[in-house]
Amino acid sequence: MRKIDLIAENGFKEKTFSNMLVHDCAFVKVINFNFEPGQELPVHSHDIEGELTITVLEGGGQFLGADGAEIPAKPGDVLVSEIADPHGFRAESRTRLLVHIAPPI
Amino acid sequence: MRKIDLIAENGFKEKTFSNMLVHDCAFVKVINFNFEPGQELPVHSHDIEGELTITVLEGGGQFLGADGAEIPAKPGDVLVSEIADPHGFRAESRTRLLVHIAPPI
Repeated sequence: MRKIDLIAENGFKEKTFSNMLVHDCAFVKVINFNFEPGQELPVHSHDIEGELTITVLEGGGQFLGADGAEIPAKPGDVLVSEIADPHGFRAESRTRLLVHIAPPI
Repeated sequence: MRKIDLIAENGFKEKTFSNMLVHDCAFVKVINFNFEPGQELPVHSHDIEGELTITVLEGGGQFLGADGAEIPAKPGDVLVSEIADPHGFRAESRTRLLVHIAPPI
């Protein structure tokens, strides 16, 4: 077993979100994204089978979806999405997200 | 896509931890565990292939491992473990954990 301290290991960047690969194995990929207010992970999708979760650890904003959909996001919220469905995020405060992708892309 | 508000949907129990299935699909199972101080998910393992992550959303305590191992756990910490390796958790304050198991058990 291995512990990753996200707060110690990944900070924030001025120009765009800061991402860090937390774990990658045959079953799941885990990525931490940190956002300053206003920074955005644009809506995107991949035409492959699988699902992902986006967990809000700190901060908040809007989960983004198809056709301009926005779903408010706060700590303790988890978004579940097919990898093939459009998904994204826009931060309204300093935000830490953890994304799990299974199977890994 | 579907949002789960863990704070609204899962509370705490007096006698033991409170667990809630967040998501289950062919690729990953996601479970939220909430602990009052002193409550424990005892060390256990399953003799199958796969990996799991334990993400601390709130509170803290100790990740538990084989041979009495303890690793301090605070918000933003992520433990990565083989499903077959012994793992557990003991809360020292009111704690919310999110566990991802891939592939699902």
